[in-house]
Amino acid sequence: MTVTLEHIQQASERLYGVAIRTPLLRSAHLNTRLGGKVFIKPECFQHIGAFKFRGAYNRLSQIEESCKKAGVVAFSSGNHAQGIAYAAQLLGMPATIVMPTDAPEIKKEGTKNLCATIRYYNRFTESREDIAADIAAKTGAILVPAFEDVDIIAGQGTCALEILQQLDEEKLSIDHLLSPVGGGGLLAGSSTTVKSMSSSTKVYGVEQENFEDHYLSKQAGKRVAVDGTKATLCDALMATTPGELTWSINSRNVDDYLVVSEDAVAHAISYAFRYLKIVVEPGGAVALAALLQGKLDITGSSAAIIVSGGNIDRETFESCLNKHPSP
Amino acid sequence: MTVTLEHIQQASERLYGVAIRTPLLRSAHLNTRLGGKVFIKPECFQHIGAFKFRGAYNRLSQIEESCKKAGVVAFSSGNHAQGIAYAAQLLGMPATIVMPTDAPEIKKEGTKNLCATIRYYNRFTESREDIAADIAAKTGAILVPAFEDVDIIAGQGTCALEILQQLDEEKLSIDHLLSPVGGGGLLAGSSTTVKSMSSSTKVYGVEQENFEDHYLSKQAGKRVAVDGTKATLCDALMATTPGELTWSINSRNVDDYLVVSEDAVAHAISYAFRYLKIVVEPGGAVALAALLQGKLDITGSSAAIIVSGGNIDRETFESCLNKHPSP
Repeated sequence: MTVTLEHIQQASERLYGVAIRTPLLRSAHLNTRLGGKVFIKPECFQHIGAFKFRGAYNRLSQIEESCKKAGVVAFSSGNHAQGIAYAAQLLGMPATIVMPTDAPEIKKEGTKNLCATIRYYNRFTESREDIAADIAAKTGAILVPAFEDVDIIAGQGTCALEILQQLDEEKLSIDHLLSPVGGGGLLAGSSTTVKSMSSSTKVYGVEQENFEDHYLSKQAGKRVAVDGTKATLCDALMATTPGELTWSINSRNVDDYLVVSEDAVAHAISYAFRYLKIVVEPGGAVALAALLQGKLDITGSSAAIIVSGGNIDRETFESCLNKHPSP
Repeated sequence: MTVTLEHIQQASERLYGVAIRTPLLRSAHLNTRLGGKVFIKPECFQHIGAFKFRGAYNRLSQIEESCKKAGVVAFSSGNHAQGIAYAAQLLGMPATIVMPTDAPEIKKEGTKNLCATIRYYNRFTESREDIAADIAAKTGAILVPAFEDVDIIAGQGTCALEILQQLDEEKLSIDHLLSPVGGGGLLAGSSTTVKSMSSSTKVYGVEQENFEDHYLSKQAGKRVAVDGTKATLCDALMATTPGELTWSINSRNVDDYLVVSEDAVAHAISYAFRYLKIVVEPGGAVALAALLQGKLDITGSSAAIIVSGGNIDRETFESCLNKHPSP
């Protein structure tokens, strides 16, 4: 079982007119600073403020009529939750979301506003997998994983498909694509797109320190886990080990992994406020952070970065700005 | 002397490949909240973070070779300053900017970074017109006004031209266009575009309280001035009377003026952070504020709003977010 460009193209058709075709932004300031050309894909402008709607809608829109009434269940710190909740709302299905009590307020509120039922759990004492499985068993709801699913991955792959289409419309191409990586769904979909359509483009996954399970897995030549108990700003990138399915794809497609510090993430958020005028959440800022920190030298070349989401609490945002007042 | 669609189309050709073609954003949240369809033109993504680059480049790119060496001089609280400074840099001309000492730090720093010479003045004791005229006389530099100029207005008019083109690409149209209005350059250019290309679309200028000189001028049937000493968040909209040239255009084209409170502006900035994920400066937020406050009912209809800039100091931004934590 794997994901092909055809899956992604089909997903793109399902999402046509439903998902937002987010623009491709550029910044003279950023280009000058890095000595190369950067294209920014701001998925913070996607429905629910993150790319997750793409995969969620692609998956849910294929659920058969007879199964719709029982609805869906998912677990997530917030963006997958909102993606599922909004897709379910559009498709007229009930949705139950299993969320950690310490998820960002903005993500809890967003999920609630989308009329989903929320079951909170304690990340340190309860198993979200067990809770979700229990709900699925009792209600008949379909459990929709955040990344270990062909349709979810194919949906996320439409993000890179749009990037390449948008570049192509201007007769442009890119040398590098950088994507955040948590469980690996966005990266698996995006790398499949890129390696199928623009094979000379190098693909990088970017992680934050202490959660560099993909980086370590590549070193080890197999999936390894990090301990995952360290605090991180990047609530969206807290998976402790690559998914089995996503890793089978990413280990084939991804050229390298870059790791950024927590402070670099805060700096990138402040930079995006100051110069790009976009609101970026920590997990969405890692690819920008990697470039700003010189983790990849793009002098004289071109790169696209996926800014995967913008759901950040006011307090966290202000703290990043205050830490880096002159980014 | 007036501005025609032809001027604006020529400006558009001059700006092609130089200015950023900012996208047209949409938000399901905003549409649901207002019961209509809203298209957001985020000029905060334009070079220097505001639409002002359009007019500046259109004007400066027409300066004859023999006059380039003496350069240009302009006065501005910040966005026209940066627009002129960046256009001059691209065209290899020196630029001197006369700026008030109390301009936002972000605008002072931005102008300095663009290698312009800055002459600060005290808004309450000095005349910026006299200072700029003096510099022009001594150096031979060309004085470039912020809005009382056909080429400046034509450049700003490319913003609405892009909106209509972008809508047309999707076979869409709009019932209303809302633009911030300070001196009236953006509104004059935009209203000329709209009335020439989409005559059934109504055009509104939006001002903040205490600076509603356009609103009052329309009531009076002639240009009137406000006192302009009141404090305002909207540093970009502090002109106290409509320009003579801009008013001759706007009094013909603009259907009505809307006035929003300072608090509504802060609320709109917080809303844009929370739901649109864009960074908006106070003067850039007035059209959004007008819709959010119901100053224009767009139920069942469609509107485009120009978000004219994003150059806001961190402290002001945080204060808006803190005043309206749940926008």
